[in-house]
Amino acid sequence: MSDRLRYDIGDVQVPADEMRAFGTSALTATGVPGDDAILVVETLVHADLRGVFSHGTRLLAAYTEALEAGAINPTPNIRVSHSTGAAVVNGDRSLGQLGAWAGMQAAIDIAHDRGIGVAAVSDTGHFGAAAYWALLAADAGLIGHAASNMAGPCMLATGSRQPATGNTPLAWAFPTHGAHPVVLDMASGAYALNKLHMVGATTGSLPAGVATDSEGNPTTDASRLAYVVPAGGPKGYGIGLVHDLMAGVLSGDGATLIKGALDPANRGPRGSLFFLTIDVGAFLPLSDFRTAMDEQSRAVNSLPPAAGFSKVQMPGQPEWELFEDRVANGIAYPASVVEPLTAMAERLGLDAPAGF
Amino acid sequence: MSDRLRYDIGDVQVPADEMRAFGTSALTATGVPGDDAILVVETLVHADLRGVFSHGTRLLAAYTEALEAGAINPTPNIRVSHSTGAAVVNGDRSLGQLGAWAGMQAAIDIAHDRGIGVAAVSDTGHFGAAAYWALLAADAGLIGHAASNMAGPCMLATGSRQPATGNTPLAWAFPTHGAHPVVLDMASGAYALNKLHMVGATTGSLPAGVATDSEGNPTTDASRLAYVVPAGGPKGYGIGLVHDLMAGVLSGDGATLIKGALDPANRGPRGSLFFLTIDVGAFLPLSDFRTAMDEQSRAVNSLPPAAGFSKVQMPGQPEWELFEDRVANGIAYPASVVEPLTAMAERLGLDAPAGF
Repeated sequence: MSDRLRYDIGDVQVPADEMRAFGTSALTATGVPGDDAILVVETLVHADLRGVFSHGTRLLAAYTEALEAGAINPTPNIRVSHSTGAAVVNGDRSLGQLGAWAGMQAAIDIAHDRGIGVAAVSDTGHFGAAAYWALLAADAGLIGHAASNMAGPCMLATGSRQPATGNTPLAWAFPTHGAHPVVLDMASGAYALNKLHMVGATTGSLPAGVATDSEGNPTTDASRLAYVVPAGGPKGYGIGLVHDLMAGVLSGDGATLIKGALDPANRGPRGSLFFLTIDVGAFLPLSDFRTAMDEQSRAVNSLPPAAGFSKVQMPGQPEWELFEDRVANGIAYPASVVEPLTAMAERLGLDAPAGF
Repeated sequence: MSDRLRYDIGDVQVPADEMRAFGTSALTATGVPGDDAILVVETLVHADLRGVFSHGTRLLAAYTEALEAGAINPTPNIRVSHSTGAAVVNGDRSLGQLGAWAGMQAAIDIAHDRGIGVAAVSDTGHFGAAAYWALLAADAGLIGHAASNMAGPCMLATGSRQPATGNTPLAWAFPTHGAHPVVLDMASGAYALNKLHMVGATTGSLPAGVATDSEGNPTTDASRLAYVVPAGGPKGYGIGLVHDLMAGVLSGDGATLIKGALDPANRGPRGSLFFLTIDVGAFLPLSDFRTAMDEQSRAVNSLPPAAGFSKVQMPGQPEWELFEDRVANGIAYPASVVEPLTAMAERLGLDAPAGF
C-alpha cells in the first residue's frame, strides 16, 4: 500500500515454523495450554506473513507480560449460548484469540444452519489482526465480518479533544476461486495504534495529522502519542463507533468510552468482539459468487494506475503477495519486532529464534 | 458537521407538508401510483428535514425525467423470495425507494423471527438517503444497516486513475430511549457525488483533494468533475468496495465496476441494495440497549470540544437538530434545490411551492 511505513523493513530472516515453535513455547511458559498456544501463535504468525507486524508475534511480549501479571486468564472457561440467529460468548478473561475463535466458530455454525449468523463476545482480550477471523468464515465459504472494541478509548471524535471510542479494527472477507479470499482489514483511525507505537519506536516521530497528545493537540512527537484521529474525519469516527457499540453493548461489556470510564480495572486486556457471517448460498451458488470476486479482482488490476503506483490492487492484495513470498522464503523481521521478542525470550528463559 | 458546504444555506421557507404534496403530485404526474409516490416523497422530505438536500426532494427532477424517459418502471412488480435468513428481492426497474422498502421490510420480518436478517435487492434505482432505511429498522427496535451500489463506477481505488467502485453510501442506525435513533449515514468517498454536483452548481468550484477529472487528475473545477476519491484513502475504498460487492453480487446484479463494463444499458438508474437487521433482544433486553446508546450520547456530548467546535456530537446528531427545527419552522431551501424543482414544475405543468 502507499502508506507503508519505515518500521517494517527488516533484515533478519526467520522461517515461519521457527516463529511458531518459539511463540508457542513463550505462551506455554506462561501457563497457556499447548493447543490454545498453537492457535494464538498461528494468528500472530499469519499476520507476520501478511506483513502486518503491528499485529503479529511482536504482541507476544505484551501477552506474556499480561499473563504473568494475572491480567489474562491462561485457562479460561469460555461459555457460548445460542439464541435464535445469535450467539453470546463469555470469554472469561481469555486471550482475545480464544474468545474470537469461539465467537467466529459459533457464527459460522449458525450461518450454515440459518443463512446468516452473528456473535458477540464479552470479557476477552486483543484478538490480533481482525483479518484472521473474517478469513475463517471465508475459508468456510461464507462472507465474514469481524470487529473489536477496546479496553479503553483512544480515538478522537470529529471535533473532540479527548477520545470518544476505540480505534476500532474491522475486517471483511469474501471467498474466491483464487488462492486467497478478498480481505479488507483496517483500523477506523488514521493508523492502528500498535503501528504508530512501532513507527515511534523506530523513528522517534509520527506522520503528520494522525495523532495527538493527551490534551488532544496534534503531535508528530512519538513520545507524546496518546490518541489517534479518525480516518476520513466523521466517517472513520462513525464506522469505528458503530462497531464499538455493537461489540461492546451486544456482548454486555459496554461501549469502550463507558466501560473505560465506569471501571478503570477494565482498562487492562479486556475487549469485546463482534462477528457476522453470511452464507452466500442463500442468495446464489457459491461458485458464482467466487467467480464474481475473481472478475472484480481482474477488473481492478486492469485499471490504469495513478502516478507513484505500479498497479491498482484489491484490498488485501499487497498483503497476500507478501504472504506468498514469506511462506516460501521466511519472514524478514525488523528491529521493532526482534527487540521486544529478544527481551521476552530472556525474561522467560527461552532461546530466541536463530538470527534474532 | 465541520464540513458543511456553501450550497445548502437557503432562504426560501417551505413547510414540509407543502413539499410532500408538491413532490407527490410530480410523481403521480409521471405515472407513479399514489401510495408509492407518497412513500418515495416521504423519504426525500425526511432528508430535506435532516439537512441532507443532496438526497432530498431535489432528486425529484432526475427521478421524473427518468420516469418520462422510460428508464424507471412506474408500476413495478417487486418480487420477494425468502431462503433461510435471507431475502432476495427483484426490484423490476422500480424507483429505488420501492425496492428498498421491500428489502428492508423483509429483513425486519426475518430478524423478528430469527434474530438476524439480510436482504439483497436487484434491479432498482437510487434509494435516496441510506439513513432512511437503517432508521426503519431502528424504529422497529432493531439494529439496521443499509447500503447501495451504483449503476456505474465513480470512485477511484487507492492508486487508480479510473474508478473501481461506486461512491457507496451506507448507514447504520441503533434504537435509543431518546427522541431519535443514533444514525450514521455516509458515502465511502470524500463527499457524496450529488453533494459535489450541488456545490459545483452553486460555487463553480470544488473543495481540494476530493475529486478528479475523467482522466483521474485532481481537480477543483466543478465543470471537470468526474470521479470522487475515497474517504481516508484505502479505508474508504475498502469499505465502499465490500458493500458494493455485497449489494451487487448477492442481489445478482453484479458489482458496480463489472455491471457498468458489461452492459452500458445498465448505467441508467439501476442500483442494487443490501440490508442487514439485528434483533438486539437476542443479546440483551432492548431497553438496556437503548439505555446504553443514551449513555454513549451523553458521554460523547460531555467531551471537551476541539478549537472551532462548540460541542462534540454523535453521528447523526447535527442532522436531528436541524430536523427538529425544520419540522417546527419549515425548510429553508437554497437555490440549488429551488431551481431544478421550479424547472420540473414547469415541465410537468405543476404549481411550484409558494415562495419558490
